[in-house]
Amino acid sequence: MPHVSKPLPAPQDAEAMKFSEFGRLLAGPSGIGELMEDLGHALAAGGTGIRMLGGGNPAIIPAVADCWRRRMRELGDDPAAFDRMMAVYDPPRGNPQFLDAMAAMLRAKYGWPVDASHLAVTSGGQTAFFLLFNLLAGRQPDGTVRRVLLPLTPEYIGYANQGLSEDFFVSIRPRIEFTGAHSFKYHVDFAAVEEALAGDPSIAAVCVSRPTNPTGNVISDDELVRLSGLARSRGLPLIVDNAYGIPFPGIVFGAAAPLWNPDTILTLSLSKLGLPGTRTGIVVARPEIAAAVAAMTAITGLANGTIGQAILTPLIASGEIDRLVADHIVPFYRRKAALAREAVAAHFPAGSDYLVHANEGALFLWIWLRGLRCGSSEFSQRLKSRGVLVVPGRFFAFGSGCDRSHADQCIRVSYAMDDDTVRDGIRLIAEEYEASRSR
Amino acid sequence: MPHVSKPLPAPQDAEAMKFSEFGRLLAGPSGIGELMEDLGHALAAGGTGIRMLGGGNPAIIPAVADCWRRRMRELGDDPAAFDRMMAVYDPPRGNPQFLDAMAAMLRAKYGWPVDASHLAVTSGGQTAFFLLFNLLAGRQPDGTVRRVLLPLTPEYIGYANQGLSEDFFVSIRPRIEFTGAHSFKYHVDFAAVEEALAGDPSIAAVCVSRPTNPTGNVISDDELVRLSGLARSRGLPLIVDNAYGIPFPGIVFGAAAPLWNPDTILTLSLSKLGLPGTRTGIVVARPEIAAAVAAMTAITGLANGTIGQAILTPLIASGEIDRLVADHIVPFYRRKAALAREAVAAHFPAGSDYLVHANEGALFLWIWLRGLRCGSSEFSQRLKSRGVLVVPGRFFAFGSGCDRSHADQCIRVSYAMDDDTVRDGIRLIAEEYEASRSR
Repeated sequence: MPHVSKPLPAPQDAEAMKFSEFGRLLAGPSGIGELMEDLGHALAAGGTGIRMLGGGNPAIIPAVADCWRRRMRELGDDPAAFDRMMAVYDPPRGNPQFLDAMAAMLRAKYGWPVDASHLAVTSGGQTAFFLLFNLLAGRQPDGTVRRVLLPLTPEYIGYANQGLSEDFFVSIRPRIEFTGAHSFKYHVDFAAVEEALAGDPSIAAVCVSRPTNPTGNVISDDELVRLSGLARSRGLPLIVDNAYGIPFPGIVFGAAAPLWNPDTILTLSLSKLGLPGTRTGIVVARPEIAAAVAAMTAITGLANGTIGQAILTPLIASGEIDRLVADHIVPFYRRKAALAREAVAAHFPAGSDYLVHANEGALFLWIWLRGLRCGSSEFSQRLKSRGVLVVPGRFFAFGSGCDRSHADQCIRVSYAMDDDTVRDGIRLIAEEYEASRSR
Repeated sequence: MPHVSKPLPAPQDAEAMKFSEFGRLLAGPSGIGELMEDLGHALAAGGTGIRMLGGGNPAIIPAVADCWRRRMRELGDDPAAFDRMMAVYDPPRGNPQFLDAMAAMLRAKYGWPVDASHLAVTSGGQTAFFLLFNLLAGRQPDGTVRRVLLPLTPEYIGYANQGLSEDFFVSIRPRIEFTGAHSFKYHVDFAAVEEALAGDPSIAAVCVSRPTNPTGNVISDDELVRLSGLARSRGLPLIVDNAYGIPFPGIVFGAAAPLWNPDTILTLSLSKLGLPGTRTGIVVARPEIAAAVAAMTAITGLANGTIGQAILTPLIASGEIDRLVADHIVPFYRRKAALAREAVAAHFPAGSDYLVHANEGALFLWIWLRGLRCGSSEFSQRLKSRGVLVVPGRFFAFGSGCDRSHADQCIRVSYAMDDDTVRDGIRLIAEEYEASRSR
């Protein structure tokens, strides 16, 4: 085949690349970029030689993986359905059967008055946040700039760089409760939230992850209802990031009631169910917001991946998804979480100055190393050189008002990997912490 | 399960929703949004009752669909590989094995000096353009606003709304060659392109689709080399949208040499191979640009869908993809294209005032209805009421300088659907055109 290829001058110096403001904000290094690089490469290599307690990759749970394989065989056994899944674009809002099944489930389970017009699929939960944050906040048609309030920080690393304007987030520090010799818990500081809402007319939305990534906190029903009321009283949407929550993947260890009303934007995802490779997120919101998300999907991506939706639709319709969650996913992570907490208790010396956040859900222990002098990034580098990946706490402190020095004494430790990796990783974390202190 | 649900006040009036500038640009109605809605719903319904000559959905070609089903069975037969594909995030740049296979193929086939550092996967080609356009053009750190030059318009409908600033595109009208009683062809008007480049320091990049969507034009090797030289001489990247081009899906009916150099940004996609449901696009660019795309993917979406890459990797490595293209995809669309051209010749009366653009590639006939008084949207509405979907030409005319009145006499007609649908749809288009003229 003919081709055009000539000797070329040396590429322009990278310094000379002229990137836009969008590029300056989104195309550089970021915490989430580093994390996903580390995670992807560690796991693409089969996890050999590295204890991957870093990223938020879900576990491969045998009964759950069996279910995905069975569903793919079922799809393959129906060539017309399989071919349609591969070769036909869904509407930008999502697959109509999937949307109907999701809406029916939410109506039946929680009594929420939603139908497909309240839903929109996105290419993973991360993309839902990119679209929603920039839909609501940032530069406004009147020239003002609006922001997103995070009522309980540290918050999810993946939000930090998503804003298309500077100074995108307003971060509220938590009220810290010391619950034991080596345990603590964050609570929403409502006085501070109310003050921020009252004093800052630029707030466009309130956003909280529940369970909280990175801390494993699950804000209480009362906290959630109170946040919803505060947001609503100011005409602001409350965005609830339910990536780890109820009804799926359901990685919540105590009781927690989900909440939705037309002033709530709830996001769900198939990733932590074990399907991150399908990139499937779901937004539940008032119809104007859901329609806006669908419109943005068309323009920025044409349509969504079809495969996660095709796998899940009959499992939602039949209720099988609830059994997968209750019988396999929740027990699996409950056991892992206990194992991780026990490993911490076993490997950190009794007199060590550390605290573990209340472990109420998600895949993570959030460990506060109060004697850490070197900062969480340097500490994580030292751990990396010993073969353990964790995420430095400082990446979860962003936005104006956040407590960087507190977060910089913390690390996020995933317990989704196999038992030995988790135990061994935590042993090395404890060792390195003690070694750091005696230096 | 407990839940929180209370009687609610009526939702705010949609008019009162405060959307940002981003929302105002991306969250409203768009040509591509309408097209994808129509396409998705027509095909989700199994295509019953509607002749879908509208969107760009690829055909389901039996030998090709067989290959995807076989690959999925192979993946399913290796549970570890299948589980990894579903449950493990790839690095944001893409799957390392896929990137290596792609780079090796481009080196072997075309001699381009590329490795994985020149590549980045995106969630479909559309997303590649959203990221690339806004990386290069739009609001700059110094406060100026830069734009993208489209050297040969009409151009792809999907670009029209992707800019995050107003007046994002500069459109150059084509030189029109009349090649027969009912045939014409667009050529690049280089005098106009040079004038625009010389007179407008705000141009940040040049972009052309090849084959061109919507026209089926394939700009010549000489035109491409000349555009590349012009862009490079001004230090601008030339973006070449290869969604329908060589090496895959290869829907090009004559000879055409691909081009790449470090000042070219080439995009490919798995969609028109028959895998749009996997949302897989590929950017080939200098390492600084590819790294920027990977960074933007991490922030806006964490990672890409894994499934299209997993299906394709061994087919690229073995060369089987070339045989699929040469033995099945190209012959299929060549036959369809001939059938469509014949249907036009058969159903439009000899004296009818219509012209068909040179049909050199892609899935479309671009038909210029010179006697159309009602405009392409009204005409498409009339066709819709007769059960035929086409895309009104006016949606492909955007950007400053474009020829809206010319494009508004044109329609884009897909020939990817089954023979009877294509023939019958074209018959109804001819009938409706004649009926419109006698009104």
